[in-house]
Amino acid sequence: MQILVIGIGAGDPEQLTLQAVAALNRVDVFFVLDKGDVKQELVDLRTEILQRHATGYQVVVGRDPERDRSTTAYVEAVDDWRRRRADVCAELIAANLGADQVGAFLVWGDPSLYDSTLAILDDIQARGELSFEIEVVPGISSVSTLAARHRVPLNQVGRPVQITTGRRLAKEWPDGVDDVVVMLDAQTAFTAHLDQDATIYWGAYLGTPDELLIAGPVREVAAEIEKVRAEARERKGWIMDTYLLRRP
Amino acid sequence: MQILVIGIGAGDPEQLTLQAVAALNRVDVFFVLDKGDVKQELVDLRTEILQRHATGYQVVVGRDPERDRSTTAYVEAVDDWRRRRADVCAELIAANLGADQVGAFLVWGDPSLYDSTLAILDDIQARGELSFEIEVVPGISSVSTLAARHRVPLNQVGRPVQITTGRRLAKEWPDGVDDVVVMLDAQTAFTAHLDQDATIYWGAYLGTPDELLIAGPVREVAAEIEKVRAEARERKGWIMDTYLLRRP
Ligand SMILES: C[S@@+](CC[C@H](N)C(=O)[O-])C[C@H]1O[C@@H](n2cnc3c(N)ncnc32)[C@H](O)[C@@H]1O
Ligand SMILES: C[S@@+](CC[C@H](N)C(=O)[O-])C[C@H]1O[C@@H](n2cnc3c(N)ncnc32)[C@H](O)[C@@H]1O
Repeated sequence: MQILVIGIGAGDPEQLTLQAVAALNRVDVFFVLDKGDVKQELVDLRTEILQRHATGYQVVVGRDPERDRSTTAYVEAVDDWRRRRADVCAELIAANLGADQVGAFLVWGDPSLYDSTLAILDDIQARGELSFEIEVVPGISSVSTLAARHRVPLNQVGRPVQITTGRRLAKEWPDGVDDVVVMLDAQTAFTAHLDQDATIYWGAYLGTPDELLIAGPVREVAAEIEKVRAEARERKGWIMDTYLLRRP
Repeated sequence: MQILVIGIGAGDPEQLTLQAVAALNRVDVFFVLDKGDVKQELVDLRTEILQRHATGYQVVVGRDPERDRSTTAYVEAVDDWRRRRADVCAELIAANLGADQVGAFLVWGDPSLYDSTLAILDDIQARGELSFEIEVVPGISSVSTLAARHRVPLNQVGRPVQITTGRRLAKEWPDGVDDVVVMLDAQTAFTAHLDQDATIYWGAYLGTPDELLIAGPVREVAAEIEKVRAEARERKGWIMDTYLLRRP
């Protein structure tokens, strides 16, 4: 058994690599966890990718367990969620993938950034009931897409860049870095740093036809981003955004 | 005039995105800065990419100016180098690209990480003598490739990851992060952190047939990495490596 974890880019099917296209073609069974609160456009995009590039495949859908969002114990809640997702995935794999077959999980962006697929597969392997090889195909992350669309590098010359979450940025500007990329920000955490002499490069729905880009001194454009973000979210029912904050 | 900055992946031509392939096809003139100390395999790889995916193009080669490596003023030396490279590129563009034509620079990995092409083009535009549009096509970085080959995420759940240079890591472990990706490390800076309870995921020549991978507790595998790295460098005459250091 082989399981491929394939990065499919941030939202533009043209961001697939040649390697990912070849990988899609080798897959017998695609595993999908359905969140219930389905973002139809993302499902359509995935379907489009499969129809264009995969052949002779089966799609097996499992029910994504609920995450406990009531608790403040973030890491524990995510760990518990991962274990329950591993239960679901292990069953899906055991029931649907033959010994000589190739299964796959498609991951938005790059599998290395804030994605639990690899941890779930490790979890399943550690249980020792199922044995499979894992192959990871890297993808274009939303971070690379953000930088490309704004035509900026992520780092200043010889300087570090930190990738972090909105939850963390809301608490404080990270130590020792002037360049911070923020993901998973449900709370527009940049508004906690309007005292900084920083430029923000913000992007939402990157790579899709609804892409939104705003850049400028964070102090001056924060209100505009909040407004545009709230309107877009209201209109579409969901939002995915990320940004780079840069101090000179 | 339009200038494309195209990320071509870390060393495997199959890492090109469909978008990059389409972009290569639109290009009339590819600009290349020749460093003199040419790594023939990288030149061959670039040639292979062009032959496979571009059509009806011209390649124009300029002489990459020397960087002053004697000084300790790293940022100033790099700034000065960038200005002189901008001089060379501005001349190449002015002399070879027609008003209706599309030029391009190919960038290893992703143009957003430790690459000066965007800064050089900004420099040229700021002079006001040449006017062109810039379009950036993101690429698979060596960082994404490293994570994929080791089948690990870059971040732990809800935690940040910092991307930094060997020069910086040699001085200290960065504040506030347990996950550090290191690039541009000529000095095996991980050896300065053998007191840490950290795991290292190391990779060299990622994506190429010479790819090397070593992972384990940094204390236990540091000597092996140093040895393998020195041998490979000796054998091939050059090395490109990167690694993730992870503290639990
Ligand atoms: C669970 S993480 C997955 C990241 C993904 N693996 C990647 O490489 O981009 C989801 C977060 O990624 C960012 N993101 C993903 N896709 C995006 C897009 N198309 N536009 C803007 N942000 C995006 C947002 O910050 C979102 O909260
Ligand atoms: C000037 S930076 C360019 C990085 C590039 N833009 C990227 O996205 O990977 C060069 C550094 O990238 C890393 N690197 C680039 N290609 C690599 C490869 N194929 N294998 C390992 N490391 C690589 C090394 O750390 C090297 O010192």
